[in-house]
Amino acid sequence: MKKIFFTPGPSQLFFSVPDHLKEGINNDIFSISHRSKKFKKIYESCITKLRTFLEIPENYNICFLSSANEIWERIIHNLVLESSTHLVNGAFSKKFYDFAKMNKIDAKEFFYDRVEYNEDDLVDDELVALTLNETSRGIMCDSDKISSIRNKLKNSLVALDCVSGLPSIPFNISDVDTFYFSVQKCFGLPSGLGVWVYNEKCLEKNKSISDKKITGTYHSLKTLHNKTLNFQTPETPNVLAIFLLSRVLDDMIRIGKDRIIRETNYKSSLLYNTIKQSDLLKEYIENKSIQSKTVIVADTEKDSDYFIENLRRKNLIIGKGYGSINNQIRIANFPSHSKESIELLCDELTKLQ
Amino acid sequence: MKKIFFTPGPSQLFFSVPDHLKEGINNDIFSISHRSKKFKKIYESCITKLRTFLEIPENYNICFLSSANEIWERIIHNLVLESSTHLVNGAFSKKFYDFAKMNKIDAKEFFYDRVEYNEDDLVDDELVALTLNETSRGIMCDSDKISSIRNKLKNSLVALDCVSGLPSIPFNISDVDTFYFSVQKCFGLPSGLGVWVYNEKCLEKNKSISDKKITGTYHSLKTLHNKTLNFQTPETPNVLAIFLLSRVLDDMIRIGKDRIIRETNYKSSLLYNTIKQSDLLKEYIENKSIQSKTVIVADTEKDSDYFIENLRRKNLIIGKGYGSINNQIRIANFPSHSKESIELLCDELTKLQ
Repeated sequence: MKKIFFTPGPSQLFFSVPDHLKEGINNDIFSISHRSKKFKKIYESCITKLRTFLEIPENYNICFLSSANEIWERIIHNLVLESSTHLVNGAFSKKFYDFAKMNKIDAKEFFYDRVEYNEDDLVDDELVALTLNETSRGIMCDSDKISSIRNKLKNSLVALDCVSGLPSIPFNISDVDTFYFSVQKCFGLPSGLGVWVYNEKCLEKNKSISDKKITGTYHSLKTLHNKTLNFQTPETPNVLAIFLLSRVLDDMIRIGKDRIIRETNYKSSLLYNTIKQSDLLKEYIENKSIQSKTVIVADTEKDSDYFIENLRRKNLIIGKGYGSINNQIRIANFPSHSKESIELLCDELTKLQ
Repeated sequence: MKKIFFTPGPSQLFFSVPDHLKEGINNDIFSISHRSKKFKKIYESCITKLRTFLEIPENYNICFLSSANEIWERIIHNLVLESSTHLVNGAFSKKFYDFAKMNKIDAKEFFYDRVEYNEDDLVDDELVALTLNETSRGIMCDSDKISSIRNKLKNSLVALDCVSGLPSIPFNISDVDTFYFSVQKCFGLPSGLGVWVYNEKCLEKNKSISDKKITGTYHSLKTLHNKTLNFQTPETPNVLAIFLLSRVLDDMIRIGKDRIIRETNYKSSLLYNTIKQSDLLKEYIENKSIQSKTVIVADTEKDSDYFIENLRRKNLIIGKGYGSINNQIRIANFPSHSKESIELLCDELTKLQ
């Protein structure tokens, strides 16, 4: 049996990726000039499908970068002059906060997860950073929470990190001014591409601060935006990844976002039920409303290697706790993970005693 | 007949790329964690082969970024506090200069190509930027010139842009402190990966300015360097490209760098001879010592489309002049272009009257 990767990203490739790669090779997609009409068509069609599939309104623009790490840095460079607010509930939201600090931004950190921060302390700022799904700890941000923050902080740009959330975890796009993700999580693609979506308010903010600070060179928002309007990137981009994303979007549009979300919910229930029924496993996040549906984290009674190695022998590859934690496992539940594969994994997890 | 791409990058893939992609898919390389031992081994082996193949001395370090554009920006952020000197002979060397200016660096521009700048005007600076092969205009920097600049400017960091030069155009690595390239040119790979090589002097310089300016976040030289020592990248990188580079290096090591250089010279002679014998074409750069061996540029009597379209009908894809120039063609002569394919192209070029 071929291995199945339930690691939280890079993870199992979407089933159609090998065929799309073959198509790319056969049609010389990876040799064409990134300034050619043919590439512009691939770019345009990828953007159009992202709009359709994710229901991105017309006043939001889309461009391609190389990673979510890069997008954190570009957001700080391009949308923040002096201060930002970060809701931090794990290693990745913390990293974004750290990036702001490294750029001498007066960044404020609001810890939250099991203990909630005080809502009253949260006030308007240049930018407020939220995380749809904190990959490191498996914590989801409820879409109602995003809406309520949006309503409270009308004069802030709201940024939503959707790295391991989109398209599996829904939210109202109009609640945020910018959001972004990388393709190696829920899109089941090889890593090396970040997608940045930003609205007109971001462009205005960028314009208003551009003469007050250095906003970048080839990837300043202004340069990126001018290029993306013409379906181009400033540099020679990861053409292969843009092409694969475009093709996988065809497949996902055919399946339908609603069905993907429904199946995500079903598969996550299976996984959490299995964890609850196990004597050796315990849900790390117990509050249903913030339990991630895409990255399932369980505390382990035995060392996490017991689970990881036993499942590996069955060709089922799961992730360990983030960083050096050895009493946690993480299991990805992305669109590339079929119901059958999750059922198989649950069966094998149940057998481990 | 399948198309052959002689475009100056992205270009023809190295012959073995489809097989390596297949191997990557079959062995789940694009699903493995970028923090796993397996990935670290791929990274380490890629670095080792780069060292072997390019004969990179031990006091130089190697790390991976996403493009040469990014490396220009990181060099300015990490190695220059106040001023830099740029030898500019085309659009790409000019861009690096522009990047420095955008970062409020006191950058000095020395034009040169057919007319030489005054050697006496060139004095020590924090960083002196040279270009091994200017892709936009097909101008090579002779290795003796690099050595003489090195000898003259002992107190500068010398940076060499090797984007469309390595490994086909040799130079003495010890003459430069940092050099870099992207893989979609002479390495015949899909685009989306930049390789940055820097010596201990760069690390010292970076250390000495790190408390005086913002040097970046995830891709500050310090962070990149600490990660690369452990065969890791700060972000989830383009694993696919690092894997392919590692595999193509196996092939190139087998062929041998000397043979690649010899064949580059032979094929470039064929191309320039064909151009000289044509009534409709003229060498753009006539001075043999700076005529690029990897990007051959010819002025065209008729509109460049005449050549481009006629060759396209024969499945031979060549490049147009850089930017909006329509009386030039550019032909890449990379290791992925076999002698036979260049001979075929020369035959067809000769037929065009």
